[in-house]
Amino acid sequence: MPSATKDRILDTTAELFRRQGYTGTGMKQIAAEASAPFGSVYHFFPGGKEELGAEVIRGSGRMYMQLFAAVITESDDVLNAVHGFFAGAGETLRETDYADACPIATVALEVASTNETLRLATADVFEEWIAGATQYFAYAGIPRPRARELALAMLSLLEGAFIFSRALRTTEPMAVAGSAAVEAVAGALREVESDPGPAA
Amino acid sequence: MPSATKDRILDTTAELFRRQGYTGTGMKQIAAEASAPFGSVYHFFPGGKEELGAEVIRGSGRMYMQLFAAVITESDDVLNAVHGFFAGAGETLRETDYADACPIATVALEVASTNETLRLATADVFEEWIAGATQYFAYAGIPRPRARELALAMLSLLEGAFIFSRALRTTEPMAVAGSAAVEAVAGALREVESDPGPAA
Repeated sequence: MPSATKDRILDTTAELFRRQGYTGTGMKQIAAEASAPFGSVYHFFPGGKEELGAEVIRGSGRMYMQLFAAVITESDDVLNAVHGFFAGAGETLRETDYADACPIATVALEVASTNETLRLATADVFEEWIAGATQYFAYAGIPRPRARELALAMLSLLEGAFIFSRALRTTEPMAVAGSAAVEAVAGALREVESDPGPAA
Repeated sequence: MPSATKDRILDTTAELFRRQGYTGTGMKQIAAEASAPFGSVYHFFPGGKEELGAEVIRGSGRMYMQLFAAVITESDDVLNAVHGFFAGAGETLRETDYADACPIATVALEVASTNETLRLATADVFEEWIAGATQYFAYAGIPRPRARELALAMLSLLEGAFIFSRALRTTEPMAVAGSAAVEAVAGALREVESDPGPAA
């Protein structure tokens, strides 16, 4: 069977997870919306919904990392990059009528206490995001422990704002979260400037 | 039928929502875990799972407001109150093996694009939280538009940190979110001190 079918199954599942979560998404709906024979879903994912779910979580995690990397590449400094990332999230919310938000958050909350395999998949993705953002802030001159705190705070602001923006159907929470993240990073950069540490 | 049964149904449903979300929670499981006759669930909630869900969302929202109010009453200043609120969230995560987090977040993400009645219930609760926190920060002297931004940022940090703490099974994200919220509020209070505005 062509791997285009497998890709279609993965993309469709990711979209269904974003809109309705893991529990609410059935294998029959996945096959139907991916225009794939029901048997082909199990052909590509013999472990069923759990195996497919884990692959979608990891794939979505990588895709999000690439999105962040693209924003960084386009931005001339770290504050613009952080602002651009939140602005992009707000645009996506508006363009998709508040449906397509983080592909992992809903699933992460659903599985945290109910499915250890999938919880570990979400944990791996989140650790990669945190490590990537920590690396980026450290590269901008922020000491590593502080850079990790900033990464965690920025990502918490982002995920929390997705919840509020989707429930309230307004981008206000995302815009405010973006400003708060920019302020936090600006504060850390000022600390570095005023006390560049032993290496300076 | 005694209203103790109704209360047991509501409490059980709230706990099941926190652990496994709305979609994954069935009326039969609710009746069984609440030790209530199946028929009594429909007696108290003729509208079925949706009506029960809406009442649980609104009740949990009020309970959370009372928790925040209790922390405020115990705290001698606004920074201690914000710190205490996040510290309490971290303790709850640890004590419940990372299961009992926000009773509304999982449901809010599940229903945002799939059930308008329940989305509106989550939106009402979130607006009450935002209004309550805005009022509290305004009372501490922070101008109202800035107070609302702080409220939104603090609540986004809290909800995002629940996602990361539950997925990673560590309170680190909640502790970091708490520090970031305290820093943000402290920054706003410094702004007020340095420029008390026309009323001073």
